Amino acid sequence: MKNCIVAQSGGPTSVINASAIGILESNINSHYYDNVYAGINGIQGILNKHIVNLSDINYDEVKGLKYTPSSGLGSCRYKLKSFEENNEEYIKIFEILEEYEIKTFFYIGGNDSQDTVHKFSIYANKHNKDVKFIGIPKTIDNDLPIMDHTPGFGSAAKLIATSVLENFLDASVYSPKGVFILETMGRDTGWLAASACIATINGNPVVDFIYLPEIAFSPDKFIEDVAKKLTQKNHVFVVVSEGIRTKEGKFIGEAEGTSHDKFGHTQLGGVCGFLKNLILNTNTAEKVRVLELSTLQRCSMHCASQTDIDEAFEVGKSAAQYSIHGVSGNMIGIRRLSNAPYTSETFALETSKVANKIKYFPKEWINEEGNNVTRDAYEYTLPLIMGEPKITIENGLPKYTFLDEAFKL
Amino acid sequence: MKNCIVAQSGGPTSVINASAIGILESNINSHYYDNVYAGINGIQGILNKHIVNLSDINYDEVKGLKYTPSSGLGSCRYKLKSFEENNEEYIKIFEILEEYEIKTFFYIGGNDSQDTVHKFSIYANKHNKDVKFIGIPKTIDNDLPIMDHTPGFGSAAKLIATSVLENFLDASVYSPKGVFILETMGRDTGWLAASACIATINGNPVVDFIYLPEIAFSPDKFIEDVAKKLTQKNHVFVVVSEGIRTKEGKFIGEAEGTSHDKFGHTQLGGVCGFLKNLILNTNTAEKVRVLELSTLQRCSMHCASQTDIDEAFEVGKSAAQYSIHGVSGNMIGIRRLSNAPYTSETFALETSKVANKIKYFPKEWINEEGNNVTRDAYEYTLPLIMGEPKITIENGLPKYTFLDEAFKL
Repeated sequence: MKNCIVAQSGGPTSVINASAIGILESNINSHYYDNVYAGINGIQGILNKHIVNLSDINYDEVKGLKYTPSSGLGSCRYKLKSFEENNEEYIKIFEILEEYEIKTFFYIGGNDSQDTVHKFSIYANKHNKDVKFIGIPKTIDNDLPIMDHTPGFGSAAKLIATSVLENFLDASVYSPKGVFILETMGRDTGWLAASACIATINGNPVVDFIYLPEIAFSPDKFIEDVAKKLTQKNHVFVVVSEGIRTKEGKFIGEAEGTSHDKFGHTQLGGVCGFLKNLILNTNTAEKVRVLELSTLQRCSMHCASQTDIDEAFEVGKSAAQYSIHGVSGNMIGIRRLSNAPYTSETFALETSKVANKIKYFPKEWINEEGNNVTRDAYEYTLPLIMGEPKITIENGLPKYTFLDEAFKL
Repeated sequence: MKNCIVAQSGGPTSVINASAIGILESNINSHYYDNVYAGINGIQGILNKHIVNLSDINYDEVKGLKYTPSSGLGSCRYKLKSFEENNEEYIKIFEILEEYEIKTFFYIGGNDSQDTVHKFSIYANKHNKDVKFIGIPKTIDNDLPIMDHTPGFGSAAKLIATSVLENFLDASVYSPKGVFILETMGRDTGWLAASACIATINGNPVVDFIYLPEIAFSPDKFIEDVAKKLTQKNHVFVVVSEGIRTKEGKFIGEAEGTSHDKFGHTQLGGVCGFLKNLILNTNTAEKVRVLELSTLQRCSMHCASQTDIDEAFEVGKSAAQYSIHGVSGNMIGIRRLSNAPYTSETFALETSKVANKIKYFPKEWINEEGNNVTRDAYEYTLPLIMGEPKITIENGLPKYTFLDEAFKL
């Protein structure tokens, strides 16, 4: 038997399932493997032998996942230790993979997951294990290096830009002066916040200021920016990344005793609340509304980008193809070929070049004042949000596939 | 000359413009009035003679408003005093209406706006003024009495239920136990929070608990509910109205020094944050995610209900028709005729029966434990979210109509 396994890790996106379906569907068509297993709840689930045979389930019951947001195979946040530190875990995983006659392990995830792929492939190589490890990118944050962009980003950008447009209209209705602050995700990088630049109305950008983690945030300069703009127009629209920080590196709105997740990342929140109070306390404006888009950015399939869904599917399909050509310790990237018309292709790159590395928003795409982005950001982002998926609607709501029984979720 | 004027007031909705277009389009077809004026920024704008002649603008430039969220004619929150208190304001308004030869004033708004319509119509009657006043309902809160429901509610309910579905999938991916709390608007009534009951997956309701302002909220009972549910399942989904309060009437999460708006309403926020802390501090669950849908509920046209848009258009059209039959001091309501298939009709009712009154969520639609709603709520809400509007898309985003130049917004 020659089987493969696919698992998902880290925060969900709207299109992470499309990549899993890309693997499964290309295997149905090309018979690369006898069985496609799913590791439920990522590497953590596999360690507990929480494994389901997708090839045993009627494809009609599964294929709806392509248009279902979030990690349909479950997820985990599990930082794999080096094998010098915890050899047992490696031994256990390879025992399980051997038991299921698994020749390829596909791991769909962000930086942390690619680190897992990297470590396993080195271990396999060192110990002559006949298992290949292939990474498939996934993150709304768009912060994986080398590739042009990551699956999940386009749909998040589309939701952000749509919300910006609609909230701009909502915020513009009263005659008194007011400020609207929309907070996006993006702990380390400003890709998500910057994507708000594609929201235009009557040909003009909707957003007045965009603040990114890549530029040190100065509360004084922020108040100066807003106050000046309020002398020119009644309604000022601000987009801010959750990851903005002072030049000393302190997160804005970070409270004393802020919690940290398992990777040591600070758990953020409340940036827009902090900025609201700042505006009110300095009497810069009387009316401030804030909106934290939060999880909506990673699960709003009803507002996803078809381009993003297609590319997520394509990286899964491509991963299956690469896997039978002996590739291991690689992940699948997306390369942009042209912008008008937009075309892209997939390619394989070593996970070592991606694992634990971050692609920052380019400094040259940020304006001189450090409070907005340039036309380059617009040109870069726009093609990635194109196309509206035809979601199946039942009783006025999206009909999503939730395999809680089959997957014992 | 025989002219009319239309204005919008209070918080926006996704479909409030459809009602204005209903008036304008039926006038184009039936020539009730020589000119349809718009009072920009409601009664406050009219007092400042901020008035635009919609009939002077090419209809092709305006008609896109039907599928544009928020108050395209601007809005205000202006509490009209009684004419005993401030006679001058009444004299001024009627002078302006006379100057523009306005015979009918259409005011699209919620409880406060219907109060304005009521006061003006009494004044007109008393002083033999030949101006009719007609109210058109609008509020996502769905809290106007007598009518079955209000335009704006269906689209808000659809956005809430869609977000519940998608966030349920997002929240279900990790294996550790967790609680998700989604906060809806609804200061006085639970209609919006209750609408989450229509979100089902594989035939099962997604939401475990719904807490409404109509039932006194007990933090102890809440923790008991959640803790008990966590013994039965890993992920608990809670929907809560911003207006929940203790049996003493104190809003949950209300901080000391909370601000109040001009109508004396407490400015809310932070209920879900309060409940999150409550769960964490009592060690009821380790992982709690919260989402405040906020303004998205009233402006997400991309996820609006076509039934809602059609009915909002219809109440506008109906208001124009009623106005030429000598009706004044009335507003247009919606009556449900049947549920399967869903049909409704418009009717006129006296604004005095609506002004400053509140329609609460029916106690008999709340379960015995006071922590969820019954099947009646499901049957009531479901028909109102049906149908997906065909929004014009340009560059991957909705193309909305924003007449900032024409309306001097």
